[in-house]
Formats: sequence, structure tokens, C-alpha cells
Amino acid sequence: MRESDILSHIAARSADLLRSFAHVRIGPGHDCAVLALHPGPALLLKVDQVVEGRHFRPLPATPPALAGRKAVARPLSDIAACGGRPAACVAGATLPHEAPWARELFDALAHWAAAWNCPLVGGDIAILARDQPGPLVVSVAVLALAHPRRGPVLRRGAKPGDAVYMTGMLGGGYDPATGLGRHLAFEPRLREARWLCDTLGPHLHAMMDISDGLGRDASLLAAASGVRIRLHAERFPLAANISHWHAAASAGEDYELLLAVDPACAVPPTCPDTGTPLTLIGEVLAGTGCEIVAEGHAWDAAALGYEHGVAPASSGQQSQA
Amino acid sequence: MRESDILSHIAARSADLLRSFAHVRIGPGHDCAVLALHPGPALLLKVDQVVEGRHFRPLPATPPALAGRKAVARPLSDIAACGGRPAACVAGATLPHEAPWARELFDALAHWAAAWNCPLVGGDIAILARDQPGPLVVSVAVLALAHPRRGPVLRRGAKPGDAVYMTGMLGGGYDPATGLGRHLAFEPRLREARWLCDTLGPHLHAMMDISDGLGRDASLLAAASGVRIRLHAERFPLAANISHWHAAASAGEDYELLLAVDPACAVPPTCPDTGTPLTLIGEVLAGTGCEIVAEGHAWDAAALGYEHGVAPASSGQQSQA
Repeated sequence: MRESDILSHIAARSADLLRSFAHVRIGPGHDCAVLALHPGPALLLKVDQVVEGRHFRPLPATPPALAGRKAVARPLSDIAACGGRPAACVAGATLPHEAPWARELFDALAHWAAAWNCPLVGGDIAILARDQPGPLVVSVAVLALAHPRRGPVLRRGAKPGDAVYMTGMLGGGYDPATGLGRHLAFEPRLREARWLCDTLGPHLHAMMDISDGLGRDASLLAAASGVRIRLHAERFPLAANISHWHAAASAGEDYELLLAVDPACAVPPTCPDTGTPLTLIGEVLAGTGCEIVAEGHAWDAAALGYEHGVAPASSGQQSQA
Repeated sequence: MRESDILSHIAARSADLLRSFAHVRIGPGHDCAVLALHPGPALLLKVDQVVEGRHFRPLPATPPALAGRKAVARPLSDIAACGGRPAACVAGATLPHEAPWARELFDALAHWAAAWNCPLVGGDIAILARDQPGPLVVSVAVLALAHPRRGPVLRRGAKPGDAVYMTGMLGGGYDPATGLGRHLAFEPRLREARWLCDTLGPHLHAMMDISDGLGRDASLLAAASGVRIRLHAERFPLAANISHWHAAASAGEDYELLLAVDPACAVPPTCPDTGTPLTLIGEVLAGTGCEIVAEGHAWDAAALGYEHGVAPASSGQQSQA
């Protein structure tokens, strides 16, 4: 049983249950839920977890302050993907019995939440019994407001002919030698997303964050939009320590934004508000699936990334995603 | 280090951080956070966790469907305590590597969330590695709307002279022989809270849910309101399997409401909407602390309940709560 299987099961089952709740505009299976409770901008709601040994190496090899930072940054990356403005968050934490770093962890949660304009307004803490082994688990739920004019940006909405961009650099999120890297220090792309919504408005057709590898995530965006995406490896903005497109598109933990934009829009090479690169990496086609053009082949992008191997699309091997 | 120490640390530290966020009306340290993002009723936000082996015996000795039910019911009990109307919830779950009951658990989460008008609109799932022991952890974050006229009901607000009521019956929430009991099957008092807000309006001065034992929780309400509460043991509505007031006021897991009401208000013996008993159990005095009058003594209520022993207040022993 895989996590994605359970999530699919929930999304399928939820369709029936949610039919009678008119205020739920978008439910399970998306980067954020979208709720219409009041006149004015819709609300976005998102929960994400970090688990010790899974999302970072066990504390204190991972500095507790960085573990807390990541716990807040991850759901905020999803809020950014929807173009939202954070309003507040709450955190649930289950701690091992011995957790001398607990205050440091919670100080970081509160600090980073406030720094990203998403104040920590409540929480629940459970400490495991002495004889009960278990990892640190921190879940952070974020409430945010959708962009007042653009509305919530979803994965669906990409159209054939669209230009495909990404923010920032690709790869190098996780250093296998140390367990450190940008995955513990990334900046959720809230300001970039806001600028894109402000500037492109309805011409920003679809967006998501890249957390499981560009190849896999671009395939998900294509599937959600009912289109095919073609990416060009020679255009990928590779991080300094990355030498090959394949490693860059397969690695997870980028937490950059991937977006499909009306091709008539002028998009500058960097976000004027932050200086973050905005790179044209591909285009949207009619069809299904996602390919990466490199070395004279069209590679099946869905076969890259987390949980997957890689094979040229032309060899006939299909993705299992 | 205790959970309450960490929570106090966070609440103290948050006061500074929250000062610049005018939309945060109530932050950490309360049953729910209160947010003013739009004109109209304020929003309530609450997260609670259940941890296998802590909030219920390990699955499958605890039926997975009841574990899921409790994960949703606990935060909804806090929403009820604030007089809120649920809008939606999101769930984060960390599962042990072998979790054949996962679908049953998630079906129960989705079912009960919908049944209580709090649809499950998103979630995040992590499955522990085969070599990583750890309990099931489920956190549920609930978004709700405050009562449109009464506004959010808080623990603070009880006034000397107020009458103190509770809903339902006291004790018997947890059966130590089987691990089962009402703690796995309680009904969050959402309808009762709504009726109380509708009917009493501003005369409903303060409310909370009883989860750590009546004695301890009444002491918390008294402290939050800056008053003294006197409870009368002979009036306690004891559950069928409870023979002594002391056991009833010490046990946790009641998930009933405790409320302070203007004494001029007529409160019927049962909630007309649900038939749930509404019992006058005491009164609010000037001063501090909480006493339970029984057997010719005034017992220190704070010394009862979860984590604590008990001693007559007249013996001079003070609560450590």
C-alpha cells in the first residue's frame, strides 16, 4: 500500500460525501482545498507533515530549528502554488519521550510562521511514553486567502500552446552526504506567486510546486489539465552542484513553482520583487503525458523522480505514476 | 518537560510575535484560535491529535473506525466549546509500515467529518519505513465559523454570581478493562453549544469542554476568568457506572461542555434540540481557584484529574496545576 493509493482512495470516496457541501469548491487531491465561506476571496486550507527520519535525518543531526522551519515551509509552498496569501497556521506535534530540543523546535515554528506572515495561532502537543518508540511528527495546517482577482490557481487549466515556466533553480535540494541542503532552507515562493497572479491575472493558467521532482510533477500537472507537456532539458536552470539534467529532473525537494502561462504574455527573466529566476522550460501540447527532450530522445518524464526509474519514452516503457 | 510547559512557553513567546497581526483576535492557549479575515462571523481554527497507545489502545484492539472517529471528534469538541459551526477539516496521518486497516481508518475520518458537517477537504499521509517503529498519529485541523450573534465563546468571561452548568453525564468515558468507552464514541456537543448561543446570547459568559476531568478543567476556566468556582458534588450527573463523585470529577475523556451563565437566565433541564441533560452544578464566586463541596469538605478541584492526586483544600495542600 502506497501513500498515493490511500490519497486516491480518499479523493474518490470524498466526491460523494462532498456533494452536499456547496461551500467546498475544491476538495481532496489538490495542492490546497478551496472554500467559499464569505463574500470576497476564497479561503485555502492545507495540511502537511514532516516526519523525523523521513523528511529530514533524525534530530539533532538535523538542527531542530531547521526541522521546525521545514514543517512550516512545506505547506506554505502549496499555498504559494495556489497563489494564496497566508493568514494563520496551527501545528500538531508528537515528540519522542526525550526531546531536549523541543523549545528550539517550537521557537522556530513560531518564528518562521510569523516571518512568512502566517502566524502560529494554536497547537497540540503529545509526548510519547518512555517505552513507546517513535519519530518526531509535526503537522502544520495553514489557512490562507486566494488572490482577490485571479482567484485560486490550480493544477488544471493549462492549455495547448501555453508556455511552461519554473521559478528558481533545479536540483541540489538534498545533499546525500550530509542530509542538509536547500530542502531545509528553501524560501516558499509566496512573493513570486503573488507577483505572477498580480501581473498575469487570468493568463496564469495553472501552477503547482515541484516537490517530487520536475519530471514527475510536470506529469501530474499535464494529467490534471488534460494536456501533454514537453520540456527541453537544455533550458533547465541547473543548480550549481548539478551537472546533468537527468539528476536535476529526478531529484525531489526543489519547492519551486511550475506554471503554464498564455504564450502571448511577456514574462521577465527574473521576478522583479525578489530577483528569483523565471525560466521558460517548455510548452503545452494537445495530448497526454509529459516528455523531456534531451540528447535526441523524448524521455518519459513521469518515469523520473521519486519512487521511479527512468527510460526513454521511445523505447516503449510506460510510466507507473 | 511536560506538554503543558511547552504550550505555556509557546503562548508566552507568541504574544510578541502576534502583536503585528491584527486579524488574530485570539491566539495560542485557548480552545480555538479566533481570526477576523472578512466582515461577518469570525473564523475559528483548531488542531488536535490522536496518538496510538496514548489516546486509544493500539489498533486493531481499538477498532480503526473508532480511532478515526475520535480523531475528528476531539477538535470538534473544542469547536463546540467556542460555540462554532464547523466548515471543513484537513487531516495529517503518519502510519506504521504495516497498516492493513488504513482504508477503514480514512473512511471513518471522511464519514464522521461529513456527518458532523465538517467535510474532510484535504490531507497528507506518511507511511513509516519498515525499520522505523512508531505509532499511528492523526492530526485533524478544523476551520469553523463563530456564532453570528454571540461571537466566539471563550473560557474567560465568567462573572461572580454566574450559574455553572454542564452538559451530559460525568465519568465513565474510559473503561480500563477494555480500553473502550464513551471516549471512542462521544458526540461532540455542537448542537447543544449552538442552542446555548442561540438562546442565551451574551448571557452565556464562558464555556469550555471537559477533557481532562471536571475538577481540573473547572480550575482552568476559573483561572482564565479570574474568578473562583464552587461545585457541589451531590449535584453531579454521574454516569451509570460511576458511584462516587471523586472518580467522576477526576476522570478525563468526558467531552462535555462546562459553562458559566448569567444567573437570571432560565436554563431547561435538557437541551430541547437533543435531549442532552443541562445540569446546574455550581456557582461563580469572587476570588481564585476552584473547590468541590462534598462530604462536609471543600476539596481543591485543581488537584483532581489527569496528572494529579487529590487532597482536601482545607488540609492546606495546594494544587500543582
